[in-house]
Amino acid sequence: MADTFRIAVLASGAGTNLQAILDQVHGKDGIEVVGVASEKPEAQALERARAAGIDWAVFPAEEHGGRADRDLAIADWLTERGVELVVLAGYMQLLEPEFLLRFQDRVVNVHPALLPAFPGLDAVGQALQYGVKITGVTVHFVDQGVDSGPVIMQRPVPVPPGRDRGALEGAIHATEHALLPEVIRMIAAGRVSIDPERPRVVIIDRPPRTA
Amino acid sequence: MADTFRIAVLASGAGTNLQAILDQVHGKDGIEVVGVASEKPEAQALERARAAGIDWAVFPAEEHGGRADRDLAIADWLTERGVELVVLAGYMQLLEPEFLLRFQDRVVNVHPALLPAFPGLDAVGQALQYGVKITGVTVHFVDQGVDSGPVIMQRPVPVPPGRDRGALEGAIHATEHALLPEVIRMIAAGRVSIDPERPRVVIIDRPPRTA
Repeated sequence: MADTFRIAVLASGAGTNLQAILDQVHGKDGIEVVGVASEKPEAQALERARAAGIDWAVFPAEEHGGRADRDLAIADWLTERGVELVVLAGYMQLLEPEFLLRFQDRVVNVHPALLPAFPGLDAVGQALQYGVKITGVTVHFVDQGVDSGPVIMQRPVPVPPGRDRGALEGAIHATEHALLPEVIRMIAAGRVSIDPERPRVVIIDRPPRTA
Repeated sequence: MADTFRIAVLASGAGTNLQAILDQVHGKDGIEVVGVASEKPEAQALERARAAGIDWAVFPAEEHGGRADRDLAIADWLTERGVELVVLAGYMQLLEPEFLLRFQDRVVNVHPALLPAFPGLDAVGQALQYGVKITGVTVHFVDQGVDSGPVIMQRPVPVPPGRDRGALEGAIHATEHALLPEVIRMIAAGRVSIDPERPRVVIIDRPPRTA
């Protein structure tokens, strides 16, 4: 167990990013997904956790006296499982400051745009509306703002000439499914840190040389 | 003359984008740079125009009773030369609405970021400050806002791991020097239009097949 890097995934929806994590990083290189949580009982992500034999739980705000209590319950559940990294994968809720304090610099999110462009909801729709030719994917540490935390990695995605929303979403999702596992592997390998002198700047160390 | 596509360049500074235009598009494919103007007598861009034997002029605001009159004088000077496209290449002044009306959808600007991220001054510094991993270059039509017009083309540029400002500026300038001439060639070839139904959207037609 000492060598295991324990992660949890919070998801609200279909859970395709969770599936990418399960397929690409779970059980490899000492990384284990030890819990999946959602605020929505119907989230398909929970099915995926069940199918993979991973602990899961639902935390609806209404059963916890509101969001603050709900987030504390989630934090306790994660702490019980020894979670070192919390991955938001299509989790549609803001997290309370108390939650973020307990997992300081250990919560990451994937966002379907090149932040700071198009934060918040429907980033793909916002990008099409603006008329950009390049959008992309950002994985960032979560702070108390909306998609405003320090950027870990980004990858550009061109808007297809026909501007077909489905095609663009498909390309962005495929990019998310590659980038998020890559970032998780780098964090688990201890290669990702926030520059203590410039807290907006995320430093990625080179991989160690293999013999 | 009938087949010539006449462009003018406005520049405030070193004029390296002007030089890229002179080197890559001037005198080729029927495109002629017929004028270079600046608001600054000391702009190195004017030297480059002189060296290339191109008409040039200086329009300091103080000699024209203010910016509105200056912009009208520039517009007249451009109209006399039959200019079909005005290229802002490091031009550090906003253009008056009257100017833009006279050259409706015929003024383009190059900006050193992936708009709408980092509009305005020192886009490279803004990007480093934010801590993005990907920035880039945008060529867009100019409207009355600050770097807010419809996007024609964009190209991503990764922030180098060491975050060296000089290295990033060099990469962005090299990208500008490729992208801006490419856009000018496409506009001259009649391949660029604003979607009449969605005025934020710039349509790029495919190049015609060559036999």
